[in-house]
Amino acid sequence: MGIVTEYSVSDLRVDGERFRANFEALARFGQTADGGVHRPAFSPAHLQARRWFHEQAARAGLEVWVDGAGNHSAQLRSDQAVATTLLLGSHLDSVPNGGRFDGALGVLCALEVLQTVQQSGISLDVNLEAIDFTDEEGAYVGLLGSRALAGKLRPEDLESSPGTHKAFVDALERNGLTALSILSASRVPASLAGYLEVHVEQGPRLAESGADIGIVTSMVGITRYRLKFLGRADHAGTTAMRYRRDASQGASAFALVARDIVMQEYRGCTINVGNMAFEPGVFNVVPDAVDVWLEFRSSDDEQLQRLESALVEQAYLQAKHFGLELRVRRMEAIAPAPMSAKVRGVIEASSQALGLRTRSLPSGAGHDAQSLATVCPSGMIFVPSVGGHSHSPKELTRWQDCVNGANVLLHSVLRMAGFEQAG
Amino acid sequence: MGIVTEYSVSDLRVDGERFRANFEALARFGQTADGGVHRPAFSPAHLQARRWFHEQAARAGLEVWVDGAGNHSAQLRSDQAVATTLLLGSHLDSVPNGGRFDGALGVLCALEVLQTVQQSGISLDVNLEAIDFTDEEGAYVGLLGSRALAGKLRPEDLESSPGTHKAFVDALERNGLTALSILSASRVPASLAGYLEVHVEQGPRLAESGADIGIVTSMVGITRYRLKFLGRADHAGTTAMRYRRDASQGASAFALVARDIVMQEYRGCTINVGNMAFEPGVFNVVPDAVDVWLEFRSSDDEQLQRLESALVEQAYLQAKHFGLELRVRRMEAIAPAPMSAKVRGVIEASSQALGLRTRSLPSGAGHDAQSLATVCPSGMIFVPSVGGHSHSPKELTRWQDCVNGANVLLHSVLRMAGFEQAG
Repeated sequence: MGIVTEYSVSDLRVDGERFRANFEALARFGQTADGGVHRPAFSPAHLQARRWFHEQAARAGLEVWVDGAGNHSAQLRSDQAVATTLLLGSHLDSVPNGGRFDGALGVLCALEVLQTVQQSGISLDVNLEAIDFTDEEGAYVGLLGSRALAGKLRPEDLESSPGTHKAFVDALERNGLTALSILSASRVPASLAGYLEVHVEQGPRLAESGADIGIVTSMVGITRYRLKFLGRADHAGTTAMRYRRDASQGASAFALVARDIVMQEYRGCTINVGNMAFEPGVFNVVPDAVDVWLEFRSSDDEQLQRLESALVEQAYLQAKHFGLELRVRRMEAIAPAPMSAKVRGVIEASSQALGLRTRSLPSGAGHDAQSLATVCPSGMIFVPSVGGHSHSPKELTRWQDCVNGANVLLHSVLRMAGFEQAG
Repeated sequence: MGIVTEYSVSDLRVDGERFRANFEALARFGQTADGGVHRPAFSPAHLQARRWFHEQAARAGLEVWVDGAGNHSAQLRSDQAVATTLLLGSHLDSVPNGGRFDGALGVLCALEVLQTVQQSGISLDVNLEAIDFTDEEGAYVGLLGSRALAGKLRPEDLESSPGTHKAFVDALERNGLTALSILSASRVPASLAGYLEVHVEQGPRLAESGADIGIVTSMVGITRYRLKFLGRADHAGTTAMRYRRDASQGASAFALVARDIVMQEYRGCTINVGNMAFEPGVFNVVPDAVDVWLEFRSSDDEQLQRLESALVEQAYLQAKHFGLELRVRRMEAIAPAPMSAKVRGVIEASSQALGLRTRSLPSGAGHDAQSLATVCPSGMIFVPSVGGHSHSPKELTRWQDCVNGANVLLHSVLRMAGFEQAG
């Protein structure tokens, strides 16, 4: 064990100035005019951000490496010859035109905790690893890096890119990755002591209730489909309206009715039609195909499955109503994931010791933690989002809340490593 | 006048074998696996098709040139020192993944008529010009070439490209064209003896009624808008459904209600939502913008204007209903155009002399003829479309109907040039 006293350990705090400087520096990669960032996985800005993370870690004397799934790690090694690893992570990629906090904050908290522990002189029985997971947001395959590390990625998951598969394969190749290397990135569960992640809430509940820290109870399950409504391409001026088989009509009707179903019959669930791709997509041709990108979520597995059946049935009904055919592709399905009760207790105790008010809540968003929850004790620490904005340049978390999150992570790490006792 | 007798002139026919060979050769440029062609304006396949047309014409001893709007012409000059020009034309561009007949047939008929007249030894008092107009289908600016030639293109029309303006400017530059050269391509109306165009009907009316030849009475007016529904980008899992401002909802509701309005209250009009462009267009972000590409048509000017008001009002209503804003861009407006009564009589007389059954009908599609109708006596000759398919690889016109169209064009030319008298 370490050389510092119990008293000094409980007084330990992250370096707010260094943390802030890192936050500002990172936000410059892919920065947009309206104060957000554009860092889809494998974009130039994303690769720059990952390089910057490794440079900062290496400069601090941490060991750095990239695994077969492209995950970027920095490690503070335990003095013990044989030690398990406590993972602290999140992701540096963003949605297109996203915000500065989502993902980035968690990676910076992890880095900050490693540096704080390193400089404190404390020696832990576990290795601490700060990890930036690949493609959390799903530019190609959502939660790619964390699912690969947890050994939960199947070969067929790598086929289901929402963009063109070719662009994905090209991106992998440019970065020296292959399907095989990704599938080989899995860790032995016994080597993992646990997983902790700090993240902005992405909703208004903490901010509205005045809580400082959110303790995530369970993670939402997410199912994604592509529903292709197929009609017939005809001249938009010469084909009488009643003879048309217009794919836009089935797609539009489905988008409206799907939302109504969720709002009326599936309270607590969410649904999104994030895209419709028209073919041929010009003014003067009746669209013969509209590909609807559908996503829906529930923190309850049984409810998620009932909703899935209802939505697919509706898609077929709307297609039939407008004389269309339907091609259904199930793209991804991530099951709801409860967080470890033990880790939730650790986060609660750490927050209380820091004088912070907590609130337990489910997460409506998917996170890398749900991949890790399948193989080791995992937990998530939420910090409040002003206005609840998310996946938008308007994302905002007060700086004190960011520091609070980093300190809760720090003390949760110390408790999970057995250095502090639950108070 | 010529050296052949009246008797031999009325027996004159196009060379069906040469015509067919040219048709097959032309269909190879941009051919698609399903038997159609993909030749959007200025695409490599389109430029190849235009070069091929010029090569064929030059090989036949016709004079060829390209004007400032990129229109490709081939001319059979009159023996008269001073002569007006009778234009015969259509276009070699296609919609994306279109058919082999639309446009191409008209240019080939024109070329075939010039070659037939040339080889007959007949000398006309007018120049005959076969012309392939630029971008009829509106990959960038619909009816670009014919509007430029008729002097009906305004500088602002060149700003309203449905694709990115940059791609248009690049395409012009690669082809040695500029906005100034396009606007300078206008002809003096007094130099034009008239305009004739053969085209497939693009609808089922001729085929269903058993007519051989359609005589177009008037051309539909076309108005195009881009209606951008603007909401707010939010996380698709964490933002409660009732707080969302989801641009997809306003766009979808508008697409459905707009069609209903036209079908219930605007008989004879057509409407098309040809595209919806989502931003950011990913699974896990509520779309903050959906740009709806809207087109509607009527052969009656007053009705077209009433419909325009009704649709724009509906777009505002739907935006308001879903808490969205609306950005309205009027892209293009082409007024309905009646065809010349004199030219219609010429086509009727020519058809009767050839023993072909005619039917008069309005055109639901826009054509280069409506540009020319504003400056010289113009007419259109329709041939039947099997099944009425159009702007699709399924376009089909029986070969005998193509030959009939070419022969009606030939004899209409001879009548308009004063060589044959109306029977």
